[in-house]
Amino acid sequence: MTDTAPLRLAIAGLGTVGAGVIKLLEVNRELVARRAGRPIEVVAISARDRSKDRGVDLSPYEWVDDMASLAAREDIDAVVELIGGSDGPALTLARQCLARGKTLVTANKAMLAHHGLELAREAERAGGALKYEAAVAGGVPVIKGLRDGAAANRITRVYGILNGTCNYILSTMEKEGRAFSDVLEEAQAKGFAEADPTFDIDGIDAAHKLAILASLAFGVEIDFPSVDITGIRHVLAADIREAAALGCRIRLVGMAEYAGDADGDGGSEIGLFQRVHPMLVPMDHPLAHVDGALNAVVAEGNFVGRLFFQGAGAGEGPTASAVVADVIDVARDETGPAFAMPAQWLQRCRKADAGARTGRVYLRFLVKDRPGVLAEITAATRDAGVSIESVIQRAETADGGVMVAIVTHPGALACIDDTLRRLGGSDSLIGEPVVMHILD
Amino acid sequence: MTDTAPLRLAIAGLGTVGAGVIKLLEVNRELVARRAGRPIEVVAISARDRSKDRGVDLSPYEWVDDMASLAAREDIDAVVELIGGSDGPALTLARQCLARGKTLVTANKAMLAHHGLELAREAERAGGALKYEAAVAGGVPVIKGLRDGAAANRITRVYGILNGTCNYILSTMEKEGRAFSDVLEEAQAKGFAEADPTFDIDGIDAAHKLAILASLAFGVEIDFPSVDITGIRHVLAADIREAAALGCRIRLVGMAEYAGDADGDGGSEIGLFQRVHPMLVPMDHPLAHVDGALNAVVAEGNFVGRLFFQGAGAGEGPTASAVVADVIDVARDETGPAFAMPAQWLQRCRKADAGARTGRVYLRFLVKDRPGVLAEITAATRDAGVSIESVIQRAETADGGVMVAIVTHPGALACIDDTLRRLGGSDSLIGEPVVMHILD
Repeated sequence: MTDTAPLRLAIAGLGTVGAGVIKLLEVNRELVARRAGRPIEVVAISARDRSKDRGVDLSPYEWVDDMASLAAREDIDAVVELIGGSDGPALTLARQCLARGKTLVTANKAMLAHHGLELAREAERAGGALKYEAAVAGGVPVIKGLRDGAAANRITRVYGILNGTCNYILSTMEKEGRAFSDVLEEAQAKGFAEADPTFDIDGIDAAHKLAILASLAFGVEIDFPSVDITGIRHVLAADIREAAALGCRIRLVGMAEYAGDADGDGGSEIGLFQRVHPMLVPMDHPLAHVDGALNAVVAEGNFVGRLFFQGAGAGEGPTASAVVADVIDVARDETGPAFAMPAQWLQRCRKADAGARTGRVYLRFLVKDRPGVLAEITAATRDAGVSIESVIQRAETADGGVMVAIVTHPGALACIDDTLRRLGGSDSLIGEPVVMHILD
Repeated sequence: MTDTAPLRLAIAGLGTVGAGVIKLLEVNRELVARRAGRPIEVVAISARDRSKDRGVDLSPYEWVDDMASLAAREDIDAVVELIGGSDGPALTLARQCLARGKTLVTANKAMLAHHGLELAREAERAGGALKYEAAVAGGVPVIKGLRDGAAANRITRVYGILNGTCNYILSTMEKEGRAFSDVLEEAQAKGFAEADPTFDIDGIDAAHKLAILASLAFGVEIDFPSVDITGIRHVLAADIREAAALGCRIRLVGMAEYAGDADGDGGSEIGLFQRVHPMLVPMDHPLAHVDGALNAVVAEGNFVGRLFFQGAGAGEGPTASAVVADVIDVARDETGPAFAMPAQWLQRCRKADAGARTGRVYLRFLVKDRPGVLAEITAATRDAGVSIESVIQRAETADGGVMVAIVTHPGALACIDDTLRRLGGSDSLIGEPVVMHILD
């Protein structure tokens, strides 16, 4: 169909996504070549274990045991890194490829969150490209959506549902009224959650993705360590019921906001705010309708207003779709700087003071069933200057305690911290109080 | 910030969108230059009426009376066409620019629906590019979403809410229980609908956009004349109430489906199906939650599954955002063929036989209040082979008649046509029956 030279790929890492990429390139071969303007050819493959059955015939492809050798080969134009892990062999391979001016396509959010700026600089220095559509929100083309679709806008806020496992657990708890641990166990049994679910349910995976989105959206240096992270372990079925009574659903939302000076002097008041946190999302917001393992991202721009992108956040097919979309960009020679502008123009900015932010909050306590507890809590909120919109006290949670849930009026979040400090020593409380922000 | 040569633009047409583009390029100048890799410079502007106040200071820009001269100027790299209209000066300018190898950025859906294939061919022949993100769904980057984001997929179906005026009218009718004509009048008074609203409310504007989406998504030659179009004039407040009782909302949905053979022999069974039609959208589908003047597009791919894009479908800021996103692509030299593959590879395909499709249908009659009418209708459905799921008869619409609404089981749509033919001569019916498909 074309006499243009093929784009020659190596694929390193042959787990679910790697096998998916190979399947996609076989099934959609002709179509991908038309859209790419030239054929895509897999020249070499590599993974740790050659003998493993991956549900796809690998015999047409040259197997390479020594991954590092891929970076040096003249007959490879781009390397697709699907090994995973923030450091180790993935990072070694990435560094070697980029240093030699080879293009790297990766789905590795952990590596980007920790080393993305270094890798972007290296790609620019040596003349390759760093592509990572599959690292955020699986099949949803939100990297391209920000880099290209929303490129004309100053993005003031980017946020979304970035972890399908958490969203599956929360929406299942909601539909079936079940407890977190119960749903998690089932998800593990079904293979929807990892045996060690920490990265997902403690919000770390979502935080990796959020840090990448924030860098791209705001034109700032990636800053994963400054993301405030709270996972979903402490969300009770009772919280979900109270949220519903307030017209909300609970979602793990990664939220980043930036009001820096785009001209580079960094003299802004609020700096970079990044938080992964279970939030109460009002039913009239599109994020409230993101169910199951879907992912979704909202970007708010100064001309376009609110953009919303939704789709499958993980899985073989969707992730392979994102990887090959990047490969097509490479074949078309439509790459450009990783974070939409040269790395030297990305601003380094300080972490925003979260306490200076304002908002409405859902504050929930489990307390002992004895007189005076509500008075103690409301005295603390009063002394901290928190203005209360409503209080709910319900006897008996599954744990035998009493639940007190407070919804505040909009106010400074520092006052919430102050409330918790004041109640810190109280023996009326069972466990830690839970704070969830209400999305405005 | 950079010593790279600026991209030199001319802007032809200075209505709402043209003024918005100038504002955006002023307000976001630095940021756009960083993302584009070089400054964007407006070299010349042109419109019919120089004296009109456009709410933006045009004195920094060279005014050109003779639009056609823009195509010939050596100091202009790309022309932004925001004149509108399928033919006339817009088409003349487009042809002249592309013939000279200049890149054309346009928001003109009517011109593309009628002449898009010709213009794409001319761009390729002469070495320019044709860019049109703003032509479909305003600020929502769905052209880039399909061309780049979903590029690895065979798209089987693309559909969405493509006209903000219709969506505003339908969602206002729904919220306030008011009649179509009443809401339309108010929308016209508020400037949300044109004085002559035909293009919007009769579905023509949505059909223009659908034909563009279908060409891009499926890799087929654009075919606007074969879109089946029904507008929203005949939707009653009572239809919206019945739809709600069925767990649905009524939306004007543009839907395209293709099952052609991607390898080009065109021997497919169903060909290209394109329809703009009010549909009943179940509440668990994301399109049901698209309110007001928003637009949204769903694309279903063979690896990525269902992608959903939503945002502002019109207006100065959002449309300018899409236009300048294209300008940034041009500055980055990331253009490529207009419909994601060279025009010679786009397949010409026949119109699908709509009657051979299957689905569930909402079929509504206004009838005279006399005995035997329901028997007459149900006899016609029986004889046509339509299987009925439910029937609702309610005395008294606003027009004094009786409303009969039928929901069918999934079945061949040809049987619905047959039912209507059988009832064609009946003097029991008041006005034309209304058929709305139920989105699956």
